[in-house]
Amino acid sequence: MSRRIDIVEVGPRDGLQNDPGNLTTAQKLEFIARLEEAGVRRMESGSFVSPKAVPKMADSTEVFAGVDRSKPTRHIALALNEKGVRRAIDAKADEINFVLVAGEGFGKRNQGMSPSESADMLMQCAPLIHEAGIPLSATISVAFGDPYDGEVSPVVVGNLAARAQRAGVGELALGDTIGVATPWQVRSLIDRVSMEAPDVFLRMHFHDTRGAALANVAAAVDAGVDVIDASCGGIGGCPFAPAATGNVATEDVVYMLERAGFETGLDLGKLIDTAKWLETVLGHEVSSSLSKAGGFPA
Amino acid sequence: MSRRIDIVEVGPRDGLQNDPGNLTTAQKLEFIARLEEAGVRRMESGSFVSPKAVPKMADSTEVFAGVDRSKPTRHIALALNEKGVRRAIDAKADEINFVLVAGEGFGKRNQGMSPSESADMLMQCAPLIHEAGIPLSATISVAFGDPYDGEVSPVVVGNLAARAQRAGVGELALGDTIGVATPWQVRSLIDRVSMEAPDVFLRMHFHDTRGAALANVAAAVDAGVDVIDASCGGIGGCPFAPAATGNVATEDVVYMLERAGFETGLDLGKLIDTAKWLETVLGHEVSSSLSKAGGFPA
Repeated sequence: MSRRIDIVEVGPRDGLQNDPGNLTTAQKLEFIARLEEAGVRRMESGSFVSPKAVPKMADSTEVFAGVDRSKPTRHIALALNEKGVRRAIDAKADEINFVLVAGEGFGKRNQGMSPSESADMLMQCAPLIHEAGIPLSATISVAFGDPYDGEVSPVVVGNLAARAQRAGVGELALGDTIGVATPWQVRSLIDRVSMEAPDVFLRMHFHDTRGAALANVAAAVDAGVDVIDASCGGIGGCPFAPAATGNVATEDVVYMLERAGFETGLDLGKLIDTAKWLETVLGHEVSSSLSKAGGFPA
Repeated sequence: MSRRIDIVEVGPRDGLQNDPGNLTTAQKLEFIARLEEAGVRRMESGSFVSPKAVPKMADSTEVFAGVDRSKPTRHIALALNEKGVRRAIDAKADEINFVLVAGEGFGKRNQGMSPSESADMLMQCAPLIHEAGIPLSATISVAFGDPYDGEVSPVVVGNLAARAQRAGVGELALGDTIGVATPWQVRSLIDRVSMEAPDVFLRMHFHDTRGAALANVAAAVDAGVDVIDASCGGIGGCPFAPAATGNVATEDVVYMLERAGFETGLDLGKLIDTAKWLETVLGHEVSSSLSKAGGFPA
């Protein structure tokens, strides 16, 4: 039997949040429906953060109200603080993904928190989430490097992971927010985090800013990670490198893994169709490779 | 001490051959000089094939006559048959890279030979090359998949490798000509070829058509391969997927490997400058990630 790798689709949140294009709420719901049709069963459908800081996610309440709850998809809401967590609970998120930060520089500018303050905030919010009976996951952002401070210490990442485990986080993502990781760093950080937080499942979140995202996915899968974040079309961009590509593309991950014999449950053709549809509503080309090259054998 | 990975620059041959842009002989020589300045010590500087089939390489004799022989760079000439080998010897190539083909469909259309006919041709040409005292390498093209026939049997690749060893090939590249390989396939084919041709050094040649080129480089390096082909700017394209990207970009390979602690001897900044210069002379954007995102830490 093939090994199953689960892909968490982050296009409707991390992808759209950083894309120059703007979708209406109805278009976001069409994007979500198309992804469900392609087989997606978990996705980041919105985030409950300051609409001033992240205007593209200002309609997340409407998006969560509009998704088809008869479908089996689990809709994940992102939150950074108690206010966001309460809004996500009110919006009936199926899962809340809390954002921890591993770099001082990025943390101060992105969410006004140091790494340890972000962990304090998680400790404060976790009981609310558990009480609401909602699965809690977390992402450690800039875990492989900080755009302001440079290298990030694996000790900091390990400590955040240990605190996430104590907060009752079920699944923890290591986020390469600015796309600087290498496969060797991925393996080494997975080892470290597995020691510090042996009871949480690991998920990986890679950006393709420097072309190594699929290399990092392969390294993570080889290291035993079964859950990968990806964004249809590879949308997402990088605010620190405007010309660069965004999240690793869902269809590129699916091609590589399925061709290597893993099972993702996703339909490559429908993902490519959705990437091409995205180009029409976003008004620009998307960066994924498969949407240009097509699968193989054809 | 860091492990050294040697990069063979293929931009002046495989890159330019498939690029829509056209360089004059003088511009090719400037490209080569810029690459030397960035630290390149081995490069494919031209090919001796039919100028009707590959018009962009019609000036390879002039290119080989124009390169600065006082530099330590080894200029490699590509050849497919006896006529090409004789022209390469006349041009004083420092090394001849002979092209074998692993797929029937691609072989018939690209060089009018089946896999075994390409090996027969190598057996016929090798004595000439040895007699001239020129190092002989070979590349097995479409070793990971054929655009016409689909999957390629590892048995065929293994047999070609064994014949290459008998022909006195010192270094053998496995070529993913159309960019379909995955890291797992790379490892498995390296194992196979190492069994069939234990005395040849291995080199790998990847295209980034489906985004997995760096993943394949990492897999090859982990499997013990010390020599990687790459093309500055990632130029090269793919005749079978016109919108797709080309060879794996030299600067992307250098970033990933150097950040992971390997030593390449190449200067990332100068490679990025050369990629940007290429955009001006080719008249279009190049596809490498590092030329857009820059290194890290900055």
